Amino acid sequence: MDAKTYSMLENYMLSCMEDSAHDKHHILRVLYTAMEIAETEKDVDYDVLICSCLLHDIGRPEQFQNPSLSHAVVGGDKAYSFLTGHGFPESFSEKVRECIQAHSYRKNSPPQSVEAKILFDADKIDVSGAIGIARTLIYTGQVGRPLYSFLSDGSVSSGKGDETPSFFHEYKFKLENLYSRFYTKRGTEIAKERQAAAIQFYENIFREVSQPYTAGAAALKNHIETGF
Amino acid sequence: MDAKTYSMLENYMLSCMEDSAHDKHHILRVLYTAMEIAETEKDVDYDVLICSCLLHDIGRPEQFQNPSLSHAVVGGDKAYSFLTGHGFPESFSEKVRECIQAHSYRKNSPPQSVEAKILFDADKIDVSGAIGIARTLIYTGQVGRPLYSFLSDGSVSSGKGDETPSFFHEYKFKLENLYSRFYTKRGTEIAKERQAAAIQFYENIFREVSQPYTAGAAALKNHIETGF
Repeated sequence: MDAKTYSMLENYMLSCMEDSAHDKHHILRVLYTAMEIAETEKDVDYDVLICSCLLHDIGRPEQFQNPSLSHAVVGGDKAYSFLTGHGFPESFSEKVRECIQAHSYRKNSPPQSVEAKILFDADKIDVSGAIGIARTLIYTGQVGRPLYSFLSDGSVSSGKGDETPSFFHEYKFKLENLYSRFYTKRGTEIAKERQAAAIQFYENIFREVSQPYTAGAAALKNHIETGF
Repeated sequence: MDAKTYSMLENYMLSCMEDSAHDKHHILRVLYTAMEIAETEKDVDYDVLICSCLLHDIGRPEQFQNPSLSHAVVGGDKAYSFLTGHGFPESFSEKVRECIQAHSYRKNSPPQSVEAKILFDADKIDVSGAIGIARTLIYTGQVGRPLYSFLSDGSVSSGKGDETPSFFHEYKFKLENLYSRFYTKRGTEIAKERQAAAIQFYENIFREVSQPYTAGAAALKNHIETGF
């Protein structure tokens, strides 16, 4: 891919970005990680891969406006239209659409091509480990969700079985379970290297926030009952 | 303190809260942690301590509106007015004001009373360890700051020496250095127990985000230069 084409695609990507949990740095980390994975895979079409990585989240604003839409489906169609409208061959544009439409868990169409598998893995790697924790916490702040919710006895819920959205809920329902769902060998390796960081962080924060709600809350109760 | 007084103070606190990085759960964690520390200190006036913990951040909205104001100074004065206006003795209200005004680094008046020292430590413990990381990331999301910035060679900056606000900058300038600044023995212990969690997280995320910007970015460059 020549530098001018790359810039044109990057500029179109930037014009489509809105929320900072999926900001341009996420896109670039995914692109760079995909390049690293691609070097260990055979017969990769780098132009399809680079283009798919750059444009994989351009459907986010539509999903944000209407959560029933899949940003993968919308993004694939937007990319196809943009590419064919800018002189890219139809077969190339169709391959990019397929990669983008298969990158999300929500869409029930697992990645088929090697480029689609690499994009899927590179995108999921950016939700793994400490960076996955950080991006989820930033999103928690953006949408005003709480860190955790409570069980009926007043103790902090681990997030498991929660119905209230919170960071702990998101960890238990999404972040904790993603490590077995990779398609490439190198993708699986990178994710496994990062898994301990996420587990450690969750265990540490759960212990830290649980502690005051047990010992300290009991001590407070004594001092409230003994009068002013 | 009787339950009715506690509820009245809690309700006043809630009416003053706005941003969720200093939400009511922060206040309760500080209160409960303060109770735990207080049990290892002598001659603690629990009513002064409970009241100071509950009201320590009520000056946040004023500082948010006008960043040149110190929420500790404003909050201490607001608490004093509220308490004297609700029939609390002047000497009690003054002790609470002193605790609240000494709880911030920004105010150049270190805590003197045992209650002020406990509030200071309990509040700083909630910025230590994994919970300190989480609260800082949530705030990063709320105010739309980036996770990290870049050095002139395109690599990710560690945050040290940065002038651009980011999570890494906040870690290097605030979170990393707070562990030696506690006043009580138990407070120092709790903070030290949590320190490893924060260091691990920072080291993990720095490694994770640095990796793509070196290996992957170099690989991309090769594929951009070799033509479309």
